[in-house]
Amino acid sequence: MNYTQSLNEYLENLSSKSPTPGGGNVAAFCGVLASSLAIMVCNLTIGKKKYLEVESEINIVKNELEKFKNKFSELADKDNAAFDKVMDAFKLPKETEEEKDARVKKIDEATLGAAEVPAEVINTCKKILPFIRKVAEKGNQNSLSDAGVSVSLINTSAEGAFLNVLINCTSLSNQTIGNEYLKRIEIIFEGVKNTCSVISGLINNKLRS
Amino acid sequence: MNYTQSLNEYLENLSSKSPTPGGGNVAAFCGVLASSLAIMVCNLTIGKKKYLEVESEINIVKNELEKFKNKFSELADKDNAAFDKVMDAFKLPKETEEEKDARVKKIDEATLGAAEVPAEVINTCKKILPFIRKVAEKGNQNSLSDAGVSVSLINTSAEGAFLNVLINCTSLSNQTIGNEYLKRIEIIFEGVKNTCSVISGLINNKLRS
Repeated sequence: MNYTQSLNEYLENLSSKSPTPGGGNVAAFCGVLASSLAIMVCNLTIGKKKYLEVESEINIVKNELEKFKNKFSELADKDNAAFDKVMDAFKLPKETEEEKDARVKKIDEATLGAAEVPAEVINTCKKILPFIRKVAEKGNQNSLSDAGVSVSLINTSAEGAFLNVLINCTSLSNQTIGNEYLKRIEIIFEGVKNTCSVISGLINNKLRS
Repeated sequence: MNYTQSLNEYLENLSSKSPTPGGGNVAAFCGVLASSLAIMVCNLTIGKKKYLEVESEINIVKNELEKFKNKFSELADKDNAAFDKVMDAFKLPKETEEEKDARVKKIDEATLGAAEVPAEVINTCKKILPFIRKVAEKGNQNSLSDAGVSVSLINTSAEGAFLNVLINCTSLSNQTIGNEYLKRIEIIFEGVKNTCSVISGLINNKLRS
């Protein structure tokens, strides 16, 4: 993804009739936003007298969050590329039986590839959550709502990615492969949703107490 | 919000220790992303033979979505400005009793102002949902997952905004005003969450059928 483009350009591309960037890209981008917000909370913690005791721990967490930010950013790129491959496969010739078979095979391959990217987004959501939880628990408590927004963004990142796994798996010509893959990813997705809900609950309780 | 800045600059500002843009701004920005994605689905519907019957309806919806995109965008700006006012109030002198009283009053005023912006985000989420639902029901069904990501973004927009209403209301010196305001907004927020869950359910069922 081109991060030198302006917000305006990105939003224009998003709303245009070009199918990329689309929902899969935005799902990964939500992971970038979530990481950035959690990094902000780290930066609002580091160097503060009150949080001197946790400073080294928060520094380590911040370092990890930077890696997640890059990972989500890469996946946003990959999502565009994977979707473009599906579109290319659909454009293959389908005159002869041989061509038809080859086309279906290519579409299936590309579609499975387009499911793998959002599946990786969901896995990355799973992995980042313990770090955001640490930020919420030990980071600057004046920024607790920001940590909460970060958790909510991870939830949408995983939910948006799951919708893309779903639409790709159900459009595979081989439904057995599609269903098995979907089931496997759905378990991870449900885990992410539950963990998000637990951390959100903790943050809500703290804010209300 | 400056939409001519690059994605890189926005993300840098977001993760920096400057408290704005922060979670409140991102919550409103999720509304901008949700509107943009729903507009994309409209654009992928308009001009398609298969959707000729719904074209004029989708055109009207698209027009409304453009207005919501602008509204969320304004609110993202306003959130930064409202938060800056709170920070300014905290910097007021507090030497004499008079100064202390005046400062607390100014902080309370600014804090209530900072709760009103995310409350308006939640209201805007409530208003946009019927239009996104229409897009999901009548728009290009190949882009159903994109409509689903749009709904999920609205959920996070409202959730993120609610966290900001919550943190501001609970930090008011007058807890009666804070609690009443919070209760009123929470009812609207719960409605948004429920509607998102209903539309997401419809989309999921369609994708699985």
